[in-house]
Amino acid sequence: MNKPRIGISIGDINGIGPEVIIKSLSNELLLHECTPIIYGSSKVIGYHKNIVKNPGFSFTNISRADKAISNKVNLINCWQDSVIINLGEATEVSGQCAYIALDRATEDLKKGFLDALVTAPINKHAMKLADFPYLGHTEYIAEKAGQKNEEMMMMINEEMKIALVSTHVPMNTILDFISKDRIYQCIRSLNECLRMDFAKEKPTIAILGLNPHAGDNGEIGTEEEQIIRPAIIELKKKGVLVSGPYSADGFFGNASYRKFDAVLAMYHDQGLIPFKALSFGSGVNYTAGLKLIRTSPDHGTAYDIAGQNIADPSSMRQAIYTAIDVYKSREDFRDMHKDKIEKVSIESEGEIA
Amino acid sequence: MNKPRIGISIGDINGIGPEVIIKSLSNELLLHECTPIIYGSSKVIGYHKNIVKNPGFSFTNISRADKAISNKVNLINCWQDSVIINLGEATEVSGQCAYIALDRATEDLKKGFLDALVTAPINKHAMKLADFPYLGHTEYIAEKAGQKNEEMMMMINEEMKIALVSTHVPMNTILDFISKDRIYQCIRSLNECLRMDFAKEKPTIAILGLNPHAGDNGEIGTEEEQIIRPAIIELKKKGVLVSGPYSADGFFGNASYRKFDAVLAMYHDQGLIPFKALSFGSGVNYTAGLKLIRTSPDHGTAYDIAGQNIADPSSMRQAIYTAIDVYKSREDFRDMHKDKIEKVSIESEGEIA
Repeated sequence: MNKPRIGISIGDINGIGPEVIIKSLSNELLLHECTPIIYGSSKVIGYHKNIVKNPGFSFTNISRADKAISNKVNLINCWQDSVIINLGEATEVSGQCAYIALDRATEDLKKGFLDALVTAPINKHAMKLADFPYLGHTEYIAEKAGQKNEEMMMMINEEMKIALVSTHVPMNTILDFISKDRIYQCIRSLNECLRMDFAKEKPTIAILGLNPHAGDNGEIGTEEEQIIRPAIIELKKKGVLVSGPYSADGFFGNASYRKFDAVLAMYHDQGLIPFKALSFGSGVNYTAGLKLIRTSPDHGTAYDIAGQNIADPSSMRQAIYTAIDVYKSREDFRDMHKDKIEKVSIESEGEIA
Repeated sequence: MNKPRIGISIGDINGIGPEVIIKSLSNELLLHECTPIIYGSSKVIGYHKNIVKNPGFSFTNISRADKAISNKVNLINCWQDSVIINLGEATEVSGQCAYIALDRATEDLKKGFLDALVTAPINKHAMKLADFPYLGHTEYIAEKAGQKNEEMMMMINEEMKIALVSTHVPMNTILDFISKDRIYQCIRSLNECLRMDFAKEKPTIAILGLNPHAGDNGEIGTEEEQIIRPAIIELKKKGVLVSGPYSADGFFGNASYRKFDAVLAMYHDQGLIPFKALSFGSGVNYTAGLKLIRTSPDHGTAYDIAGQNIADPSSMRQAIYTAIDVYKSREDFRDMHKDKIEKVSIESEGEIA
């Protein structure tokens, strides 16, 4: 199997993104697993390299992703000019650089020059200054994949995988997302994702309730009985190994998440609070449901510690490994599928003979 | 200082309540700290004692709480007849027994025969069968204290104290609870509780946001800027050490809760998910804001394991110790206050002289 080519967009140049990229790629073992290509600028990476002071890190400039050199850290200059770095500040420049690098990397991902994309963190305010018209990476990548609204935000760590029915929306709108149709689609999409991207042949999925105590049989809200449970029942009938709705506090209190391949939470904090409380710094954000593979670390630009050489690269490193794993899992899935198809045709021929 | 008299209502006789009471009170050390009085029935406790098979546990029947014997486990028979125990089932009888014991204990608490009350778990369905017209213990005790709607549900473990603005209500109604006035009252009440009940002279309090990322400066919901922050500012001006609103996922992700004496969550799952995920079995439910002191373990009747002698008494034991601690803290608070008052009057007299 060829090593996958993993694009890494530089993110906000005033934050800790470049630092955690450099630290992650300073490990030679990673180069056995993939061919990394940084989308950014050799000058900016050089600047941050001086901060990190890691002699184990070097990179090679290349002009195009299909010319990436195996066993090297490759870098594509997405702009030529020197740019002003203001560590710890959201600037128009930092937004523009992040946007340009992301665009270039995503184009290469779509063309097949890259097998997966890992995005370093961007700052919402800086992206606004640079006229980035998306809520975040997740929505951007979904639109670029031609799969708007098919994406599903999913968080991954060593303890659990957790996907969200609704994400960065005000609490007074979450009811709009709780429909039988949407829950059904989310569970189906999560099931497919676990099979294809994480090599779970028969995934087990837990669904959380919306209300306290999952509605307590309709005594504290009716969405569980009227919306969530009917969707679960329908998918059970189709052979999906899904169960719930579970009372969210009890579910995390007795570590039930360990019994399932993934959990579906109804809203942001319901999923992200336990995820982060039990994550210990190496969480990965994965955009499920798309043809394109994209991961990112679960932290932001962390302006408050930018340039101090104290940022922990665990989450970025894990994001790169997750991208590699998803790529390999999809390859295997395709192979298995192909075999099945071939086997079926051979058997059919035999019968005919 | 006299040892406090701690009443313990038996709760649902078909669940694990009697078992964890017996296991908790089998420890002699506890008898140095308090004089426990079980409200229930010697026959029912005898039945469960046969299951627990702990030779270290014995009790003394008394007729009235003010006749409780120090260094003994005391028991008041709240009914005389034999009752049918159906382990693991919600029955009218189990509801009735729980209700009678709770009523008797609460009466004694109000009369001052008890210094604090610890309630073993009840089952909502059984209580309904017994015509118990309250949502739960918390609302019951608030009404009996003549302080309806002044109560605040608070969860306590070794890691954190967390109070809730809204509790067992459907998600589609939580916005009704998010008013500046209510948040203000909750913070004030929490501040008083920490000073009086937990001996924090200048308590530090963290407030969580309602929306994902605490609204992200108004981009994901406006309640933080329009309601929560103004309440915080007003209390800061009055010298309360309160801060926030914090993004809930990040707050628990980076263990910020360790820096504060207590946390105020906006709704049930926002507080209870991280509490239980990080609790490890010894959480205590405390009804803050009342003159009467009442605690309980943070688990339910656990019908599925009733009568198996496998229930963990840690949470019940912790609930008893918390009741003792709150009692002592209030005594100390009163003493300190008295001193101040006396000192002030002496000084005033001095001045006059």
